[in-house]
Amino acid sequence: MTLIWVVNPNTTEAMTAAITRSALAVVAPGTTVAGITPESGPPSIESHYDEAMSVPGVLTAIRRGEEQGVDGYVIACFGDPGLDAAREVARGPVIGIAEAAMHTASHLGRGFSVVTTLGRTIGRAAELAERYGMQRFCRGIHACELPVLDLDTDPDAVKIVTEACRQAVDADGSDVVVLGCAGMADMCAVISADVGVPVVDGVSAATLTVQSLVAMGLKTSTRGEYAPPPEKVYAVGG
Amino acid sequence: MTLIWVVNPNTTEAMTAAITRSALAVVAPGTTVAGITPESGPPSIESHYDEAMSVPGVLTAIRRGEEQGVDGYVIACFGDPGLDAAREVARGPVIGIAEAAMHTASHLGRGFSVVTTLGRTIGRAAELAERYGMQRFCRGIHACELPVLDLDTDPDAVKIVTEACRQAVDADGSDVVVLGCAGMADMCAVISADVGVPVVDGVSAATLTVQSLVAMGLKTSTRGEYAPPPEKVYAVGG
Amino acid sequence: MTLIWVVNPNTTEAMTAAITRSALAVVAPGTTVAGITPESGPPSIESHYDEAMSVPGVLTAIRRGEEQGVDGYVIACFGDPGLDAAREVARGPVIGIAEAAMHTASHLGRGFSVVTTLGRTIGRAAELAERYGMQRFCRGIHACELPVLDLDTDPDAVKIVTEACRQAVDADGSDVVVLGCAGMADMCAVISADVGVPVVDGVSAATLTVQSLVAMGLKTSTRGEYAPPPEKVYAVGG
Amino acid sequence: MTLIWVVNPNTTEAMTAAITRSALAVVAPGTTVAGITPESGPPSIESHYDEAMSVPGVLTAIRRGEEQGVDGYVIACFGDPGLDAAREVARGPVIGIAEAAMHTASHLGRGFSVVTTLGRTIGRAAELAERYGMQRFCRGIHACELPVLDLDTDPDAVKIVTEACRQAVDADGSDVVVLGCAGMADMCAVISADVGVPVVDGVSAATLTVQSLVAMGLKTSTRGEYAPPPEKVYAVGG
Amino acid sequence: MTLIWVVNPNTTEAMTAAITRSALAVVAPGTTVAGITPESGPPSIESHYDEAMSVPGVLTAIRRGEEQGVDGYVIACFGDPGLDAAREVARGPVIGIAEAAMHTASHLGRGFSVVTTLGRTIGRAAELAERYGMQRFCRGIHACELPVLDLDTDPDAVKIVTEACRQAVDADGSDVVVLGCAGMADMCAVISADVGVPVVDGVSAATLTVQSLVAMGLKTSTRGEYAPPPEKVYAVGG
Amino acid sequence: MTLIWVVNPNTTEAMTAAITRSALAVVAPGTTVAGITPESGPPSIESHYDEAMSVPGVLTAIRRGEEQGVDGYVIACFGDPGLDAAREVARGPVIGIAEAAMHTASHLGRGFSVVTTLGRTIGRAAELAERYGMQRFCRGIHACELPVLDLDTDPDAVKIVTEACRQAVDADGSDVVVLGCAGMADMCAVISADVGVPVVDGVSAATLTVQSLVAMGLKTSTRGEYAPPPEKVYAVGG
Repeated sequence: MTLIWVVNPNTTEAMTAAITRSALAVVAPGTTVAGITPESGPPSIESHYDEAMSVPGVLTAIRRGEEQGVDGYVIACFGDPGLDAAREVARGPVIGIAEAAMHTASHLGRGFSVVTTLGRTIGRAAELAERYGMQRFCRGIHACELPVLDLDTDPDAVKIVTEACRQAVDADGSDVVVLGCAGMADMCAVISADVGVPVVDGVSAATLTVQSLVAMGLKTSTRGEYAPPPEKVYAVGG
Repeated sequence: MTLIWVVNPNTTEAMTAAITRSALAVVAPGTTVAGITPESGPPSIESHYDEAMSVPGVLTAIRRGEEQGVDGYVIACFGDPGLDAAREVARGPVIGIAEAAMHTASHLGRGFSVVTTLGRTIGRAAELAERYGMQRFCRGIHACELPVLDLDTDPDAVKIVTEACRQAVDADGSDVVVLGCAGMADMCAVISADVGVPVVDGVSAATLTVQSLVAMGLKTSTRGEYAPPPEKVYAVGG
Repeated sequence: MTLIWVVNPNTTEAMTAAITRSALAVVAPGTTVAGITPESGPPSIESHYDEAMSVPGVLTAIRRGEEQGVDGYVIACFGDPGLDAAREVARGPVIGIAEAAMHTASHLGRGFSVVTTLGRTIGRAAELAERYGMQRFCRGIHACELPVLDLDTDPDAVKIVTEACRQAVDADGSDVVVLGCAGMADMCAVISADVGVPVVDGVSAATLTVQSLVAMGLKTSTRGEYAPPPEKVYAVGG
Repeated sequence: MTLIWVVNPNTTEAMTAAITRSALAVVAPGTTVAGITPESGPPSIESHYDEAMSVPGVLTAIRRGEEQGVDGYVIACFGDPGLDAAREVARGPVIGIAEAAMHTASHLGRGFSVVTTLGRTIGRAAELAERYGMQRFCRGIHACELPVLDLDTDPDAVKIVTEACRQAVDADGSDVVVLGCAGMADMCAVISADVGVPVVDGVSAATLTVQSLVAMGLKTSTRGEYAPPPEKVYAVGG
Repeated sequence: MTLIWVVNPNTTEAMTAAITRSALAVVAPGTTVAGITPESGPPSIESHYDEAMSVPGVLTAIRRGEEQGVDGYVIACFGDPGLDAAREVARGPVIGIAEAAMHTASHLGRGFSVVTTLGRTIGRAAELAERYGMQRFCRGIHACELPVLDLDTDPDAVKIVTEACRQAVDADGSDVVVLGCAGMADMCAVISADVGVPVVDGVSAATLTVQSLVAMGLKTSTRGEYAPPPEKVYAVGG
Repeated sequence: MTLIWVVNPNTTEAMTAAITRSALAVVAPGTTVAGITPESGPPSIESHYDEAMSVPGVLTAIRRGEEQGVDGYVIACFGDPGLDAAREVARGPVIGIAEAAMHTASHLGRGFSVVTTLGRTIGRAAELAERYGMQRFCRGIHACELPVLDLDTDPDAVKIVTEACRQAVDADGSDVVVLGCAGMADMCAVISADVGVPVVDGVSAATLTVQSLVAMGLKTSTRGEYAPPPEKVYAVGG
């Protein structure tokens, strides 16, 4: 039995629930998924500041998971916050949803477009595309300018995101779409049917990547920079 | 039920059998794997010429698979021969073992070393690392200078490959090893235990990548260059 | 006396004849050109599948050329099919027309546009630009959406290709055009006069590159991956 | 009068004092420097985990600086922790010491070597070199394997770091050295005299970069991703 | 006391005067700036030919500066003519204005647009962006098609350049502007106020970079290619 | 009849004579080569300063060639001095020997080593490799530390260069050698026989590239930056 924790870096429980459903829908028999909401952090992640402030909560959650024998983790925000630190802390694999989504998209076509929420997050997504070697497949990153939490509440959200995907594919000459926010996970099938290209949700992709790594017995290397960090006493200030 | 064909581009049945065992060892309940040996091609692939001559056999096999409703394919030679053409021909996903191994290794550390058979295949591996965006993770490609078919018959094969892996990791400062030949698939665990880093076998990795893509309902995009190729009458000469 | 074989990877004799004329028009006194049509393969190359299926015919032709003492070869399809394998098999130099055209264009301006036939071949052209290091000069690859064999039969072909060149130069801010199909070889002068930039035909360029290499006594290196491939018995199946 | 805060991301006061001295030694008349120790965080930064946990303290410090009218900030740890978030929060410029040191080194020679503390921090330094466009100048990153706080207490520290610099320059064929830790700031002159190449300390370089930006009236752009982050209520958990 | 020579590579005295004012406006107390007009060269630099012909005059000026104990030099033309040779000849640092402007812009946002004079200079600017590692920040280079000397005499110059900046920022999605000609130095503040992004003038930026390097005691490395050139007798022909 | 001028950027007549012999040895019937020594410039080029000072002489020579109806030019120094400016001034093609040598080598193997004279010229060669897109083929640049003019006078010159080539090929794992100085042109055959790989001389390669371009009727594009430079009155100073 494989136990995967899908960690939502923001503190909005409804989003954790939706993310967990996406992950559960795709795992194989024998894989259990638990969705985790951290105890500290921002209600949604829409800036570098939000992202930085979400990381301690993510890391605390993963440390708790380690005590409970979790086999692997998904970091379920498209900025993949805290990924490197999480890999030091966890024994099993840790995968970010931007990481998994981009890798997955690269198997399906010549080039993908990312459609994300606010324009101010485009820089971070571009940085991750480069970090993962996926820059050569990433033909454009497009914002639909819907705030994260509106994805769940705006009745036109699916329509707006779908339209942004259609325009992105045309503008970029791409043949695959990557959804650039965990809050879009349940829109995949609808958009794919409408736009006519494969649409990748990072939550599903990351969960299955972790499932596969566990099946192969593969863990983050401890030779080098991802070895457990030296133990230290941290000041907790002001 | 998901049906995956693992296509061995060379015609050596014993190698197909070994590859199939590697794939079967990691798939989830509900996934069936069949190993396929093509009817034409070289007994092993150790040159660009061998690789080019293996492609028609691979494509014929996949066309046969399409008639039988196969869900996805693995091309089980580290040169990933015929991958682009196979994606045009198959409805479901097609993954090469170099592709899957390199992507997988990128999730596990800062940089990997590839250990392959003959030195003359290094150029092709480097080209694939670049194609998949994995060049930034690939710190070195090293040959153990064992011919492919000797991997199965030379009693020192495991020892020789293990030693090459150890030296590669040291020389490259890498923290993960990728095995650069389908014929090394069953050496993974031994080498990993010995060298102390994660060791990735492309056959397992590619099979699980296909399994995951099928679980998510994702197929190669038909918008653009991977659409089915125009039907034509081919001359069969001399 | 230098003997160059210009190998047309497709089986359309009329196209071989046209290609041969282009090559003959530019060679120096002392160079002989023969156009070669392979005995097997597709009538035109418009997909990865077509390209893969053309390679055995190209290689058989080159093996035959080796028996006849040919000094060097041109592979006259813009996908440069089988180039690496051909370099293993031939003693003298082998040049692809995409390779030669792109290199040549890089000597003439700051950046070139490629104008090709079908949009689905753009990915391959981009891959070759990267492989040859010409990506930094290649500002765009544009399709005129004429099938290869229509270049010869459509009365508007020159007009359509010329218009595509003009638009490409404007859109890309480029100062040179590369024609992306051997079937366009005889359109060079007309398009150049019309659009006002140098227009490069790969067939001429590749033939002269081979001529120059032979004049300098240069052959493909046999130190490393382009050494003659190990002899093997190939299965010829089904 | 220009007021620059040099923020030490770790909580070791002695290190803040040393860093401040380095900055004060180079500023022009009219520039005031204050060294800031955050209230929370690790005593030294030697892992991704340490770095992630230092960021909230850095950001709190900068928010306090904004209330006090600080003109610009230096983040004085070679991992440049929290740089993007800090740029959203501060009105004036924010510069990391890795950023400034690498840019500065690029003005002085063809290629530089970085000498840092522990080997496990090399990956982060390499990532920053790429981010800043300095990868093409960065010929190698070398660890002397001294923990950060030993730089101040180990009587052989200067000797060990100097020797690492000498070996780095020879191994890399570089002509400039970048010191990869704020704790090495006061070793610059000695090492330079000994090894015979310019040696760059990031604390001085970053402080003067901020001073120059303020002199030109330049601030972080607020058009796009570095605009002030949306205000939110953050959960403070567990 | 730091003495910086700002060398104007063209022979137009009015331009030297304007450049010198820009530099003087930003230096710290204790820094002296002298503007230098070379004795030979073109009246303005608008081609590779102009640039090549300006270099001997720049180098002669710097050799004279060396006799007078100048601490560092700015080369005040956006093509940074003669930079490498100048670094061999001068003991202190030498900075080009394209170099300084691009580095500076990279500290202020995610990506910058360059606005230059004639379109034919775009290629050189792009080459410099690459050379300095700034290509990843440089999102576009745009010409306003005003000849260099018209910047000073055309009453609409500021308006034309401002409009070009506005369009560049919109087209490129950039958040910073770099002015691509020394003759635009005094337009910075107006354009920034109008377009709403930081606008960087290379003359100020380069002068302050030199000032900072001198403050840190840093000079061009003499280990390797920037060592003083071997003394030779030069033919002065025709 | 095609007339090619091979311009030696230094003023040493013996070197012009040797270069001209190399060019003459490879051209086709119908091509005439003249070797040109400029009236001004350094006796050999071994620094950025030498190179900069050679450019006016090269450009004056080419302007004279234009008056005499020369069809194309070779710039016969491995730094390719003045190439861009020369392309503005000449109607026909202009090719540098580093440019031609590197392109040629890329047709012959997977990767080449450059062997040059003094170590201080390595940076320039690397810059050119990048500029021409040949960086991906260039595995190393090695100095034999013989001054340029000693190539002709040192009785051990061939032996020293040969040994440097052998070591370069081994160290780099390359399969082709590029000779990095026009003064080595006549060593090609000997070194190739000795080291066992193709050895490329840029003078021959560039001359034949010009010959081929002229045969195809191709000239430098005048659309954009290589258009004739605006006419100006130049100051001739001090």
